[in-house]
Amino acid sequence: MSLLETKVSTEVPGPKSKAFQNELERHIDARTVHIVDADGNRYLDVYSQIASVPVGYNNPTLLAAAQSPEMLSALANRAALGNFPSTKWAGILENSLLKIAPKGLDQLFTAQSGSEANELAFKAAFILYRRRQRDGKAWTDEEIQSCMNNAEPGSPHLAVLSFRNSFHGRGFGSLSTTRSKAVHKLDIPSFDWPQASFPALKYPLKSHVAENEAEEQRCLKEVEQLITSWRLPVAALIVEPIQSEGGDNHASPAFFQGLRDITKKHGVVMIVDEVQTGFGATGKFWGHEHFNLTSPPDIVTFSKKAQTAGYFFGDSLLVPDKAYRQFNTWMGDSARVLMSGAVIKEILDNDLVAQCARVGDTLYAELTKLAETYPTLVKNPRGKGSGTYIAFDTKDAGAFIKAMKTNGVNVGTCGVETVRLRPMLIFTEEHIPILINALTKVLSSISA
Amino acid sequence: MSLLETKVSTEVPGPKSKAFQNELERHIDARTVHIVDADGNRYLDVYSQIASVPVGYNNPTLLAAAQSPEMLSALANRAALGNFPSTKWAGILENSLLKIAPKGLDQLFTAQSGSEANELAFKAAFILYRRRQRDGKAWTDEEIQSCMNNAEPGSPHLAVLSFRNSFHGRGFGSLSTTRSKAVHKLDIPSFDWPQASFPALKYPLKSHVAENEAEEQRCLKEVEQLITSWRLPVAALIVEPIQSEGGDNHASPAFFQGLRDITKKHGVVMIVDEVQTGFGATGKFWGHEHFNLTSPPDIVTFSKKAQTAGYFFGDSLLVPDKAYRQFNTWMGDSARVLMSGAVIKEILDNDLVAQCARVGDTLYAELTKLAETYPTLVKNPRGKGSGTYIAFDTKDAGAFIKAMKTNGVNVGTCGVETVRLRPMLIFTEEHIPILINALTKVLSSISA
Repeated sequence: MSLLETKVSTEVPGPKSKAFQNELERHIDARTVHIVDADGNRYLDVYSQIASVPVGYNNPTLLAAAQSPEMLSALANRAALGNFPSTKWAGILENSLLKIAPKGLDQLFTAQSGSEANELAFKAAFILYRRRQRDGKAWTDEEIQSCMNNAEPGSPHLAVLSFRNSFHGRGFGSLSTTRSKAVHKLDIPSFDWPQASFPALKYPLKSHVAENEAEEQRCLKEVEQLITSWRLPVAALIVEPIQSEGGDNHASPAFFQGLRDITKKHGVVMIVDEVQTGFGATGKFWGHEHFNLTSPPDIVTFSKKAQTAGYFFGDSLLVPDKAYRQFNTWMGDSARVLMSGAVIKEILDNDLVAQCARVGDTLYAELTKLAETYPTLVKNPRGKGSGTYIAFDTKDAGAFIKAMKTNGVNVGTCGVETVRLRPMLIFTEEHIPILINALTKVLSSISA
Repeated sequence: MSLLETKVSTEVPGPKSKAFQNELERHIDARTVHIVDADGNRYLDVYSQIASVPVGYNNPTLLAAAQSPEMLSALANRAALGNFPSTKWAGILENSLLKIAPKGLDQLFTAQSGSEANELAFKAAFILYRRRQRDGKAWTDEEIQSCMNNAEPGSPHLAVLSFRNSFHGRGFGSLSTTRSKAVHKLDIPSFDWPQASFPALKYPLKSHVAENEAEEQRCLKEVEQLITSWRLPVAALIVEPIQSEGGDNHASPAFFQGLRDITKKHGVVMIVDEVQTGFGATGKFWGHEHFNLTSPPDIVTFSKKAQTAGYFFGDSLLVPDKAYRQFNTWMGDSARVLMSGAVIKEILDNDLVAQCARVGDTLYAELTKLAETYPTLVKNPRGKGSGTYIAFDTKDAGAFIKAMKTNGVNVGTCGVETVRLRPMLIFTEEHIPILINALTKVLSSISA
């Protein structure tokens, strides 16, 4: 069978997949599980483990990294990286994550998930906020004692501003900035933090220029108003270059430049959450490179395709005044940083970011044709010029992706009724027909 | 050189270690870093990467697991374990973590750090609390909408009770229960959650029986009072079997049975944080096995020596009412779960828990002798019957452990002036003289 052939010969999920799910169900909550390889079915994966597989399954460069002597040691002798890194740690970082540090951000903090990375970024922003207020003065006894009781002034009431429909993770801090779905948030105590409107752009963009510009100005105004009038001081703002889980919502470079201006003006730390947009899929290595910001964001967080997590920053004031304030036992995982190094090598050696930009343009053009043929089922196609980071709205996204799977393609949903394409970076022109054929079959069967 | 010889031939840190630290400092905050292998010095490690190395460096069983075909796939094809686990996942869990599930707790949720595990446990408790209140009723529109604004009733004001001097992690939820040191908490917004006194036992225990019993009763009373009168409903209580970071503070089985009784009585989820005590060091596989509780805790969290993290639970009501409420992209790391399987095999095959109990008894006896000789420098030795989980108070713990390093032994501190011993599970009788000799040298030089 050609590598490019898909094959689905059972119902989905097939009987063996169901049996494995039942086995799992005995000890873990397996209601979200889709086992895809138990029945011999073969799919084109355009969801990529929730956008987290960078360069394909069984990639030889990754397999080699997984068998390196450094990996053996990282796995068998897991270090508390903040205290006792091996002498190789600096070299490992230089040969991996530091190679792709966003422009202007040469400092790194490693973590284990996007959620953790965002929370570490919030903590850095809060510590900086209070450091500026303290203006060189020592911690007071009152601060030291009150923080042990979770009380002011030691535990200050400070806020992070996020956007409606954003997703930044599920820890208690990160979930307080997540605004995508009730299923993520209901019943979990949250901080009293503000949310601003994210631009709801109308498509096609060229037919709604003035309207969309007004919408972005409205949102920027709301952001500034919240920063200046929210009942708690706003220490940081967090934003995705493209809102992903929330529905693949894009905004213009002007909007992001506006955010940079407002945050600079009010001394608010600007955190760009590149957990899903980072590592090339948008046709730039970092999604925020599309915006040509006049000065870099203060913090950029990453995870998913990086295969590890953490954040980059540039301002050394974001390093806390004392050691051990930003710290934990493992401080990331050197095994996963080694895998990240292999991913980065593969991306850079094969110029996969440029490939993504090129393939994305072709894919977007094909999708536009489908939107013309099926205007009620392929609505608001978006992601032009954003590599393969492409999405469209439909009528019943859940049923749509189920039908796609029966036709040999694994895709995901987001937002309310959005189908999001998340191919890996090795997705090329030869995969496009498989995807488009499956889309065409599903669309024609729905509209029949 | 014998494997049992230590060697320190430079100042500590030596020149090469300092050079590596400077190299790291260029890109990360390296003030907490102690590189121990750059100058050819050789130490006995009785701190074990902050108590997280289970069975020694370069353990052959771990090295074999690191080179297995399953590992290769886990590293190169990292799965979103909640959605798309491989068909091997159930088998991997059964052959690793499920083997050592605490009695009565047969359900598992995997995570990546102790902090994450504790926060997932809190979320499970909060969801359960509201589920009971809802009593089978559907989510209301008001709940669904208000939670998107971080407001009641959707984002309820509920609390987790923890203990003074406890450490449960550094996320925004876990840090709200951590009460060990200001350096962990200062400047970080916290939830308005209560802390109860943890028993401050007096040593030697046999000379303070009535006093200690009264102290434990006082603390239990305070716990019940906080649960019934705190300004927010208390949905969960979290406690370490031995407070570790907070100073190696022990309490009796009767105290923990009291906690179990109070939490049962008031419908509060009892979470036992075994991040540091789990995996054998106390002479039982789980620290709480020392307490002979009449019914198991509701949740037990783990990390560190497990080399991965997560929580066990028994009550299926702790599985949320709907799918995707407890979920994230990676849901743990199957590579680290495979390492955990090797650790568990090594512990069970070599009966290391029993060994720890035996070696700990001898080590404790030796330490008692030192306490008799140097009563002002080795105070309140504790951990009798708790395996190698042994500690003592001294005058200047920071200077003490620096002197220990110069004498070839790496140890750690905790609490205010406590030296904590955290040998690996492979620490045997033949290592005791090395440790005791170094302690004796340091003690005699300080007291000289």
